[in-house]
Amino acid sequence: MIGVMANSPSGESMIARVVRLLSVFPKYNRPLSVREIAAEASLPVTTTHRLLKELEAEDLVVRMSEGGWQHGNRLWEIASRNSPVQSLRDAALPPMEDLVAGLRVHLSLAILDRNEVLYLERITPDDYTVNITSVAGRLPAHATSAGLVLLAFGSQEGQRLFLSRAHTRFTDTTPTDIEQLKEKLTRARIDGFVASLGTIIPESTGISVPIFGPKKLAIAALTVIVPIGEEDLNLIVPQLKITARAIQRRIGVVPEVNSRVTRETRQSPQS
Amino acid sequence: MIGVMANSPSGESMIARVVRLLSVFPKYNRPLSVREIAAEASLPVTTTHRLLKELEAEDLVVRMSEGGWQHGNRLWEIASRNSPVQSLRDAALPPMEDLVAGLRVHLSLAILDRNEVLYLERITPDDYTVNITSVAGRLPAHATSAGLVLLAFGSQEGQRLFLSRAHTRFTDTTPTDIEQLKEKLTRARIDGFVASLGTIIPESTGISVPIFGPKKLAIAALTVIVPIGEEDLNLIVPQLKITARAIQRRIGVVPEVNSRVTRETRQSPQS
Repeated sequence: MIGVMANSPSGESMIARVVRLLSVFPKYNRPLSVREIAAEASLPVTTTHRLLKELEAEDLVVRMSEGGWQHGNRLWEIASRNSPVQSLRDAALPPMEDLVAGLRVHLSLAILDRNEVLYLERITPDDYTVNITSVAGRLPAHATSAGLVLLAFGSQEGQRLFLSRAHTRFTDTTPTDIEQLKEKLTRARIDGFVASLGTIIPESTGISVPIFGPKKLAIAALTVIVPIGEEDLNLIVPQLKITARAIQRRIGVVPEVNSRVTRETRQSPQS
Repeated sequence: MIGVMANSPSGESMIARVVRLLSVFPKYNRPLSVREIAAEASLPVTTTHRLLKELEAEDLVVRMSEGGWQHGNRLWEIASRNSPVQSLRDAALPPMEDLVAGLRVHLSLAILDRNEVLYLERITPDDYTVNITSVAGRLPAHATSAGLVLLAFGSQEGQRLFLSRAHTRFTDTTPTDIEQLKEKLTRARIDGFVASLGTIIPESTGISVPIFGPKKLAIAALTVIVPIGEEDLNLIVPQLKITARAIQRRIGVVPEVNSRVTRETRQSPQS
């Protein structure tokens, strides 16, 4: 009964309103005023103020000394501790940095979430500091190499749902036709990678490989972005695959023994 | 009025109950049943079930195919995008990995949050994968080198509040006396580091240096943990300070120009 009363006159749950309020902060890189938060979350100012005070009592938001509200550390703490997403990202970062140091290209790590590609990390060689603003962004799965590779190496159920849906055309090369998409997924399984030339922005090509989880399904995609016309697949794909395997090792997915590999030593000579 | 009705008969706010529910997941590294969550959050099973369904509608929790509930990606997404804590952590990781590779010691990154040290990262040389289970843990400020260094280089107001409080003794060397703590903070400001020998666990010494923010106040502490008796300060402290400065550069805090440094070149010869 309490749950029903907690809903607003429009029938929206308190939780939905809190989520909408908290989701405003990630759009800005600075503390926000109550009025700004209310406007952006489409909530009355009084409701916004009351919710902020309740969230403040739980440390989910903080009022900055300069004025304005921001996410509290407690939100990060709850979301990050033992978070599967966070631990995948942590495992992936060092091998990703090694690849960017070598290839000097834009590199991203993404997962599939509700028909969209959710970017866990993006790093670029020119920007020495990590570009956090682009982390946690989303793009539609069919229009990105990451989305297609995740679907190709994902569950049968996921593929079936994906192919039953309508897909928006963003550029001349965006695949939207079912047969075309089916062929792309088959091609991906044969090649072990996907290259999407200008499918979401005409100027860029994405080249993605899967990162496998313990169940031999792709749990994430590693993507190199290059200007269109500069997709040297013979150079990029092998390095992407090596990096994906390095990430797998770090999350405890040991690659199958390759029978063509012979080890001269059984133990390392020292330590 | 709606806000008042949303409270439980005990007067606890809906938000407080949701936070308690969501805080259960970080304690376990696996999906949990409704009964487990209810027991751990001290909530009735029916309330827990209803809240989980409302949270699921907002993607804050997910029901796993194997059964059991877990944090949804949306929680991480809201908490991480443009999060000051997350971006500090991202900036610090690469220099921290370089230090661990060189020194072969346990290293942590921490901030001060509500009189406690909140650990944003812990890395060890022996465990190749990042130990996410210990990230987002907390320890009392007075009993850790990280807490003392953060207080010493923190705000006057923070120090005043800290010294007005009672402090628990954990070991024979835990500082709890006000005069003793005052002296430790003064010593830290002179030395630029804190070494706490066995103050929380008798077996370990923590050695911490501050990471400064734009306002010349410590925003984080970098800590090396070594077995007691192995605290070679001449070796460890300079490397900790170099790493702290590398992290500061990555977050855009440029160190003051050192007048004793002369540059032979004004521009680098190439690029």
